Amino acid sequence: MQTTAPAVTALIEEFAKLPGVGPKTAQRLTFFLLRSPADQSRRLADALVRMKEQVTTCTTCFNITETDPCPICASPQRDHGVICVVEEPLDVLAIEKTESFRGAYHVLNGALSPMEGIGPKDLRISELIARVQGGEVREVILATNPNYEGDYTAAYIAPLLKPQGVTLTRLARGLPLGGDLEYADEGTLSRALEGRRAFEG
Amino acid sequence: MQTTAPAVTALIEEFAKLPGVGPKTAQRLTFFLLRSPADQSRRLADALVRMKEQVTTCTTCFNITETDPCPICASPQRDHGVICVVEEPLDVLAIEKTESFRGAYHVLNGALSPMEGIGPKDLRISELIARVQGGEVREVILATNPNYEGDYTAAYIAPLLKPQGVTLTRLARGLPLGGDLEYADEGTLSRALEGRRAFEG
Repeated sequence: MQTTAPAVTALIEEFAKLPGVGPKTAQRLTFFLLRSPADQSRRLADALVRMKEQVTTCTTCFNITETDPCPICASPQRDHGVICVVEEPLDVLAIEKTESFRGAYHVLNGALSPMEGIGPKDLRISELIARVQGGEVREVILATNPNYEGDYTAAYIAPLLKPQGVTLTRLARGLPLGGDLEYADEGTLSRALEGRRAFEG
Repeated sequence: MQTTAPAVTALIEEFAKLPGVGPKTAQRLTFFLLRSPADQSRRLADALVRMKEQVTTCTTCFNITETDPCPICASPQRDHGVICVVEEPLDVLAIEKTESFRGAYHVLNGALSPMEGIGPKDLRISELIARVQGGEVREVILATNPNYEGDYTAAYIAPLLKPQGVTLTRLARGLPLGGDLEYADEGTLSRALEGRRAFEG
């Protein structure tokens, strides 16, 4: 795209490299910042640089962090006997937002996917086993995504952890809150039936 | 949003300040950059800073530029006797992409809008009149947007330029290319009828 300002074109091109940002959106973002005070662009630029400089990976749970071990792994208020195994740092964020989990995490960094060539070596599986062998762990929640790759990953990890004598669990499947029976897919509905609980009236 | 890395939270917040970027998109962009090579974040940060440092406004046409006068105003290959008056720098971009205009531009920096309190003093109208009084100009195309504010702005400017003896034109209204008669709104269709041309078969 040819504008009379190469610096504008350059910024449009950089924005367009982000996922879900097409050329029109990239243009809109650029012209928005062009009209905004310089301070706003500067703060975004600083945040970008600082994020890359300061964020590292916790060598215990492999979540993103600025300190190693991360605040969760270092916290005496968390129950380090329960490890919630997730695929991505975003999953940790989602679970933390529920405020209903007080254990620790283990971020695998993806899920097994023969289709995409992601094997056990690409994930933090051996580190998880070593952590469980460490002793303290009583329960491992295999909280990988409720899809094919996530289920496959959980099924791969489970037999490796069983010999350690820990309790292995998986997040409940069922109808989402606010969902509508009529529109639930068959898989979800059959899992909801299987997992039915006594009515607490 | 609380993550274990404040630098990540900061970047999510900065992204969320952009128009059309909600908290979920801001998260997605941040985690995308977190996984990408540091180089990508650095290039985006640099482009942001450079854009604000290097981009200025052409003192002739008020388009964005890195040099003053801008390459279009400075070009001997452009016809400076025809000025296309637009609202925003993005409009210049849109017209340049057609490659069917070889004249110069004048960016008003918006449109008159009594509702939003934008009056003639907020736009580059007096500068346009001064430019036309300069002599060389033969035609002024009032290419403000085909909406209420754009029409109003064109109607406000026209009588101010008429005494200079220049030809005043407005972009043609009609059916958009690839459009469907059935779905055209009444206004567009009645303008298309009004502006009908001899069939060139």
